[in-house]
This record gives sequence, C-alpha cells and structure tokens, in this order.
Amino acid sequence: MIVSIIGLGLIGGSLALDLKERGFASHIIGVDRSVEHETIALEMGIVDEIKDLQTAVELAQLVVLATPVNAVIQLLPKILHYADEATVVTDMGSTKYQMIHEVAEHPKRKQFVASHPMAGTEHSGPKAAFHGLFDHKVAIICDQEGSDESAIALVREMYNALNMRLIYMEAMAHDLHAAYVSHISHISSFVLANTVLAKEKSETAIFNLASGGFDSTVRLAKSSPKMWSQIFEQNSTHVIEVMDTYIEQLQLWRKLIAENKFAELETEMRKANTIRRVLDTPHVERVNTTYKEA
Amino acid sequence: MIVSIIGLGLIGGSLALDLKERGFASHIIGVDRSVEHETIALEMGIVDEIKDLQTAVELAQLVVLATPVNAVIQLLPKILHYADEATVVTDMGSTKYQMIHEVAEHPKRKQFVASHPMAGTEHSGPKAAFHGLFDHKVAIICDQEGSDESAIALVREMYNALNMRLIYMEAMAHDLHAAYVSHISHISSFVLANTVLAKEKSETAIFNLASGGFDSTVRLAKSSPKMWSQIFEQNSTHVIEVMDTYIEQLQLWRKLIAENKFAELETEMRKANTIRRVLDTPHVERVNTTYKEA
Repeated sequence: MIVSIIGLGLIGGSLALDLKERGFASHIIGVDRSVEHETIALEMGIVDEIKDLQTAVELAQLVVLATPVNAVIQLLPKILHYADEATVVTDMGSTKYQMIHEVAEHPKRKQFVASHPMAGTEHSGPKAAFHGLFDHKVAIICDQEGSDESAIALVREMYNALNMRLIYMEAMAHDLHAAYVSHISHISSFVLANTVLAKEKSETAIFNLASGGFDSTVRLAKSSPKMWSQIFEQNSTHVIEVMDTYIEQLQLWRKLIAENKFAELETEMRKANTIRRVLDTPHVERVNTTYKEA
Repeated sequence: MIVSIIGLGLIGGSLALDLKERGFASHIIGVDRSVEHETIALEMGIVDEIKDLQTAVELAQLVVLATPVNAVIQLLPKILHYADEATVVTDMGSTKYQMIHEVAEHPKRKQFVASHPMAGTEHSGPKAAFHGLFDHKVAIICDQEGSDESAIALVREMYNALNMRLIYMEAMAHDLHAAYVSHISHISSFVLANTVLAKEKSETAIFNLASGGFDSTVRLAKSSPKMWSQIFEQNSTHVIEVMDTYIEQLQLWRKLIAENKFAELETEMRKANTIRRVLDTPHVERVNTTYKEA
C-alpha cells in the first residue's frame, strides 16, 4: 500500500519507519512544509520519495496528517478535496474536537478518521524519529460514527501494525481527558523551567543541582513551542479549566505550608501517592480495559 | 573503618551498599526507628549488625544521619553527645540551614559536617536501596568553616568513594537553590497528581492516557510524604517564595491562553526551551566547574 505522510517530524517520521519495516506500507511518500525536513527524511531513508501535497494525496491509499494541529485544520479540507473516493485520510493530532467540527459538512467527511496516538517525546523534527515509538501505547479514534466503516478498518489495521491498543471516544471527552492527563503536564513543565530560569540567577547551581528531581519534571519543557501553543489554542477551554484547578491546589499547598499545617500537608501528599496505582501498572495491563465513554 | 548509619531507607541503605562494596567501610552498623526496616536491612545484607543509637555512635569512626530532616534535628545533639572526640558525624538531609543553626553552640559542633548528596528516587525504605545511586552526581558540603578540617577530609573521602563531585556552599544559599531546583519540582508533581485525581473522574482514562507526558512529570508524586513535608517545613520561607513565582508564572500563561495571545505564549515556551542547555549537559561536564558561593 502507498502511504503518504504529511509532516515529517518525530511522529510522522517514526510512523514512516515502522509502517515500512513492518510491511504495512510498500511505498512511503513524504510532504513537509520545510524543504530541509524533506531532504533529511529522504536522506535518512525515512520516506521513499518527496512529492507536492496534491500528488502525494492522489497517489496514496492512505494519507496521514502528522503536522501541528493548526496545520491539520488548514490542510484537511484541501486533502479531502484532492483525495480519490477510495482514499482514507487520518491525522495524529493531540486535539480532536475543533478539527472534526471544521470538516463536519465536507462531502468527503466519511473518508476521514480522527485519531490520536498517545506517544511522543520532548524532541522534534525528522532526526528525532525512531523505530518503536508507538509500541504498546494507546491510540484513540474519535467520533467514529462520522467515518466509513471501511476507513475505520484501515486505520485500525495501521495502528495494529504499530502495536497500539485502540480505544474509542467522543472528541469532546478526548479533549477534556487529554487536558488533564497530557496538556497540563506540559504546562507545568514549561512553567517550572521559566520559574527557575527567571529567579535562579546561578546557572551553575542549576547545572549542579538538577539531579534532585528537576531533570524529570522539567523534561517536557524542551518540547516544541509551535506544536504545543496550537494544542493549547485548540483546547483552550479545557486547558484553562485544568489550570484553574492546578493553581487552586497550589494555593492550598502554599497556605498549608505558610500556616505550618504539616499534618494536613502530609494527608494531601498521601492522596497524591495514590497516583502510584496508575503509574505502576504496566502499559499492557492498562490497556486491557476497552471502554467507550461520552 | 566502622561506619554507623542512622536511618536505613533508600539513602542510608544505598550508602551502606556502596561504602561496603568499595572498601570504604569494613563494618556497617545500622540503626532505624522502625524495627521492620532494621530487620530487612540486616536480612538483605545492607548492614552487618543492628545496635541501639548510643552503642552505634560509640563504636563508629563515622556516623551518617540519613533520616528525614526533622529527625536529624532531634538526633544530632544526642549523637554529638555520645560521640567520641575522634568521631565524625555527617548527615544527608535536603535542607541545611536550620539543623546547622540548632547545633551552632554545641561543644562538638566541629565534629559535624553538614552535607547533602543530590541523589534519590521516588521510592523509599531499605528495599529501594541500590548500588550506584550516588555515582557521578553532586554532593554539597555546607558552612564548612564550622567543621574541623579533619572531619571535612573524612567526609570528602566518603563522597569520593561514592564517585560524587563535591561543591561547597553556605547553608542559606543551599536551601534557596534547593528550593528552586528540587523542592518545587516535588511540589509541582504532587499537586499535579492531586489535580488529576480530583477532577479526572475516569481512572481508566488516566490509565490509558498517561503515556502522553503524565508519567514523567508526576513520577515524584510517589515520594515519601513524611520526608518531604519535613523538607518543606524546614525550608518554608524559600519554598513559599518559589511557589509564589511559580503561581505567578502559571497565571501569566493562563492569561495568555485566555486572551488568545499565542504568539506571546510561544515566546514564553521558547524561553523555557533554553533549559535544554542545562539538561542536555552530561552530569560529568556539569560538575567540572567548582564553585563556591555566598
């Protein structure tokens, strides 16, 4: 099968590597806004050839959009327009509601499957791509009743080739859950980095002391600004709701510390410890519960 | 040399393992408030024998306090009292100013070296102990002018055996830097866990979506409540100062998102990206700058 991948960064690049190696794709066509990324992807053997968007869509049986989410919204109507009626289009964006809303009335809406593989690192660009990024993680398909069954089947097959477990959600529920479980983590990490950079005048001190837990909590602060500002933009209502809860909780902690209420603070910390239940469950077990929620 | 370790958790246990294996200690005596921990440490071969506090101090050439910081403050005067005049006492606590202040007038103050190895994991107890925890990380000695040179020399030798790089700081500067680089990371992680647990009603959703960055930012939320509430208590002034900056920065981000100022948000994120400079420098390079600051 010919697969065209639009956006040759960490996600698109890693996808290309696995789909080719595992025999799902016989030929991979790449498209990127950046000629430099296109050249790197070709030279690294991530894609077989580079084409313009229209040709890439016309030649493919499956088109995967792996760009930042604002670009998905811009490109999706155009791609559906170019697509042959047998061509399936999917995307890998971290927000889902707005893009689905934008193509709701498109005559080829049913050829589009909105999906989100929950995988990534803090690195970006084609050089960050690697084999196995998606293995044993979860992919979400949203509002599947809006897509043809045959289109869903093909996308499901693709995620099977990536060793991902599929779950189904409504787009709005997806965006809310993602705000709690992924987007706020990135905000807390970005803001933590800026807090330290703003006030900790001694860079040597940061260097020397970073092993005290800082490394892991601030890792996501290295993530792509372009990609994440678009996610926060498209999911702003939920992101603000979660931020308000987060700030409220921080203010509670500040108050307990300022008022020397350390027994109560310990109670809050023991509550936080219960997150262990979630984190210490291996991914394989985690995904053994299929669910669908509104 | 006989080394007595008071507190047989992750830190004390890992210390015992390496000091014995590397020949720094010929015999290790363990003391813990919990008989269960003492039994486990003995059965696992982490320590050679268990004694009461007084005997353990009397028999040792070096006594290492590896308890939570409130216990350090309680035990330190007693341990110095029991100590022979040739015995050196050090501690591994994450805050330094208050404990040094408490023993400032103690007749045996000069036998005490206040230190802080910047190493740890989110796990606790003797079963969490492992070889190599301290390797290639940084240890800090505070207010070294308060200690005998021979005492400093012995503690330096111990940290050399642990493959740690030593730096020297005033206690107050240590506590401020630690608040920025370590303590706030733990708070942000604990609070993030509680934010998600409070509002994300679907535990299955957390399970399934946790690979989207949540795992790493919330890892420290598994840390010991007893240990960390004492750190926040003893470092409350600095911790509150850092929390205020963190909350202020979060409010700025909330405002930029709510007001659709995503270009400005991207600027903030690019600022955060510069933390890369610090994080991507290997530990070995990081510590090649000796420094001492007020």
